[in-house]
Amino acid sequence: MSKIRVLTGITTSGTPHLGNYVGAIRPAIAAAQAPDVESFYFLADYHSLIKAQDPARTQRSTLEIAAAWLACGLDPQRVWFYRQSDIPEIPELTWLLTCVASKGILNRAHAYKAAVDKNRAEGEDDDAGITAGLFMYPVLMAADILLFNADKVPVGRDQIQHIEMARDFGQRFNHVYGGDYFVLPEAVVDAQVATLPGLDGRKMSKSYGNTIPLFAPRDELKKLIFSIVTDSTPPGAPKATEGSAIFQLYQAFASRQETEAFARAFADGIAWGDAKQALFERIDAEIAPLRERYQALLARPDQIEARLREGAARLRQAYAIPMMARLRDAVGLRDLSKVTVASADARARKSAQETPVFKQYREADGKFYFKLVQGDRVLLQSIGFDSPRDAGQRLAALKQGELGEPGSDFVLGEGVSADEVNAALAAFVAAAMEGNKA
Amino acid sequence: MSKIRVLTGITTSGTPHLGNYVGAIRPAIAAAQAPDVESFYFLADYHSLIKAQDPARTQRSTLEIAAAWLACGLDPQRVWFYRQSDIPEIPELTWLLTCVASKGILNRAHAYKAAVDKNRAEGEDDDAGITAGLFMYPVLMAADILLFNADKVPVGRDQIQHIEMARDFGQRFNHVYGGDYFVLPEAVVDAQVATLPGLDGRKMSKSYGNTIPLFAPRDELKKLIFSIVTDSTPPGAPKATEGSAIFQLYQAFASRQETEAFARAFADGIAWGDAKQALFERIDAEIAPLRERYQALLARPDQIEARLREGAARLRQAYAIPMMARLRDAVGLRDLSKVTVASADARARKSAQETPVFKQYREADGKFYFKLVQGDRVLLQSIGFDSPRDAGQRLAALKQGELGEPGSDFVLGEGVSADEVNAALAAFVAAAMEGNKA
Repeated sequence: MSKIRVLTGITTSGTPHLGNYVGAIRPAIAAAQAPDVESFYFLADYHSLIKAQDPARTQRSTLEIAAAWLACGLDPQRVWFYRQSDIPEIPELTWLLTCVASKGILNRAHAYKAAVDKNRAEGEDDDAGITAGLFMYPVLMAADILLFNADKVPVGRDQIQHIEMARDFGQRFNHVYGGDYFVLPEAVVDAQVATLPGLDGRKMSKSYGNTIPLFAPRDELKKLIFSIVTDSTPPGAPKATEGSAIFQLYQAFASRQETEAFARAFADGIAWGDAKQALFERIDAEIAPLRERYQALLARPDQIEARLREGAARLRQAYAIPMMARLRDAVGLRDLSKVTVASADARARKSAQETPVFKQYREADGKFYFKLVQGDRVLLQSIGFDSPRDAGQRLAALKQGELGEPGSDFVLGEGVSADEVNAALAAFVAAAMEGNKA
Repeated sequence: MSKIRVLTGITTSGTPHLGNYVGAIRPAIAAAQAPDVESFYFLADYHSLIKAQDPARTQRSTLEIAAAWLACGLDPQRVWFYRQSDIPEIPELTWLLTCVASKGILNRAHAYKAAVDKNRAEGEDDDAGITAGLFMYPVLMAADILLFNADKVPVGRDQIQHIEMARDFGQRFNHVYGGDYFVLPEAVVDAQVATLPGLDGRKMSKSYGNTIPLFAPRDELKKLIFSIVTDSTPPGAPKATEGSAIFQLYQAFASRQETEAFARAFADGIAWGDAKQALFERIDAEIAPLRERYQALLARPDQIEARLREGAARLRQAYAIPMMARLRDAVGLRDLSKVTVASADARARKSAQETPVFKQYREADGKFYFKLVQGDRVLLQSIGFDSPRDAGQRLAALKQGELGEPGSDFVLGEGVSADEVNAALAAFVAAAMEGNKA
């Protein structure tokens, strides 16, 4: 059984925080351990250009995020790890898909519609300030997925629609070009994605400014954890675990036993300061070795660059280049020297200028045949008749224009249509009349 | 003086006819002879995918059209002659431009609007049956042009808008990424493009079905020319040259002297049959050697394939690859090992956590200096003062937060802004107060 291909795009903007780690990085890396899975992880830097127009930031984010995933245990020997912009087949496939993608579907993309709604609310033109990048983003994403025939794509709920679009574009391409070129991907939505509370108790998110950077130095990490908002329950008084950011954060890093012990400590009235200290130690115990690896990786950006390039080069050889060759052939971007269909066609057109003739002959099987030939093309070939009279009678009927059904007592030549034969018969009759006149 | 770059896209659908030859191929090849011009001719096969979804036809048309241009005298040693789909930098640039192109501008493209109008007239949804390819076509076309910094693009009137869009996207990219990356191209519209009449007297056009194929065999060419509609003026009666398709066609192929002689023959009452015979001979005299070359070229599609590939390979080395490297650097798709800005920035962020300190010292020149240092960053560096007292007084003022103008008696460190220094001074003051309390 072939492995299930799972493809994960990694946003290359911003700096990863604990929420990204618990919600995305850690589970993705764990999932890659499954034996029946072939995992694809890519740095989606073409996507980042839609929003980020600060080149130094784009470069830095890409480096930091690559280093973060590697530090967290992504193993480029076991999984495909690459940078989107190292695969020229991706923008090329984007164009091929653009040519089959329905514009009407793109109009309905959530992200685009949200931008339009915002413009309307502000009394602006629908598309004010909207780039074609935002509008076309689902097509690029479809190319990311379809190029590698990914079976499954883990996404958040807001991205399900994009996977449906990728299915639609893939299906349309398969239909237009008559082949099973693309596997239609499925969205995998983890119903219980772990979301972490941030410093203020709301979901940890860059947009709330309440994040804890994944690789904050130990002292900064401590400072941030101690700044988490708590209620004023005094030391000694029992504390509720439910709704406690401290408790939820702890749970995200602790074993079940540790979590149970922490819950008992809450019931026993642990002081907030002590709870924060325990949380800090627990997180730091998991993060410290990763942080060290992260710093070591960041200190050698040349090695990260080399790893990404090597990953992309291997992946292109294994999948992207052969796949694109197949797709180019499908749409007709072909080697002109292999112009078989074209030359057959050219022959047909050349032959069409010549007067069709009937040929009667006897084969080695003793039977009597005839065929209709135009130039070097056989338009029609009879079955074998037992006597020359039978063959001659059928032929005479044909010469009167009575074609009948192919398959009864004749077959059409390869690639020849009944219309062509009828046209040739008409030409034959016309030529015969000319000849009679002469 | 550098040469003017002129770029011409060649549609790769259909079979070229005499109208294409007189209106486009012949003048374009003549224009390439100018000594101050560097000409780019490309087979626009990515574009053809928007409409043509018959792969064998796409392949065949590409071959025939390449052969036609070569047969008509296009010299790949003198001009750049290539196939769009051999230049992967084109779809890549298409994506970069997509990210800066305004969607609102694309909404206003004539071809897209015409398709919407048609849908509306038929009571359909605006975008019914419209692909993203039709919508995004102007961005691909902009990439074709901007990648090679073409100065001039000869186009028909209907294409002027697309050149304006290419200018707009190029300008926007230059603006967003702060550099003169792209030359802004100019449309060149030949006010008197030669249009030929077709068999029925209307403009020769595939859509009217009234064309004469450029490389029709001699006997077919003759038959077609003799089928041109004429009036019933009898032999011997003078014939009007104006409005005569025969005369216009003749004129397109004849010298001035020949044309004048033909006009005299019209006045003298030449029979239509004789006029057609003269027209046929005149056209065939020009086309026959091209037709022969065309057939020879078509017989060796491998050579055409090799020429196109070689043209693309040289062009990529000379222009596309270095240009794309520059553009990738501009947007931040960069070699991560060359992360100079990033590490400077990372240093800045790290340093920002440390308390700024002032350092006073004497240099080898005997003068007295001070600087403001935060972590390993120099935020501010004084000029040399003659006495320690002068330096100390200035320093005391600074410590009060009186920064003054950079360049007066201090300079800012490399990459340091006045805002950063002010923030550091504030932190310094705050830290000093903390110290006083302790």
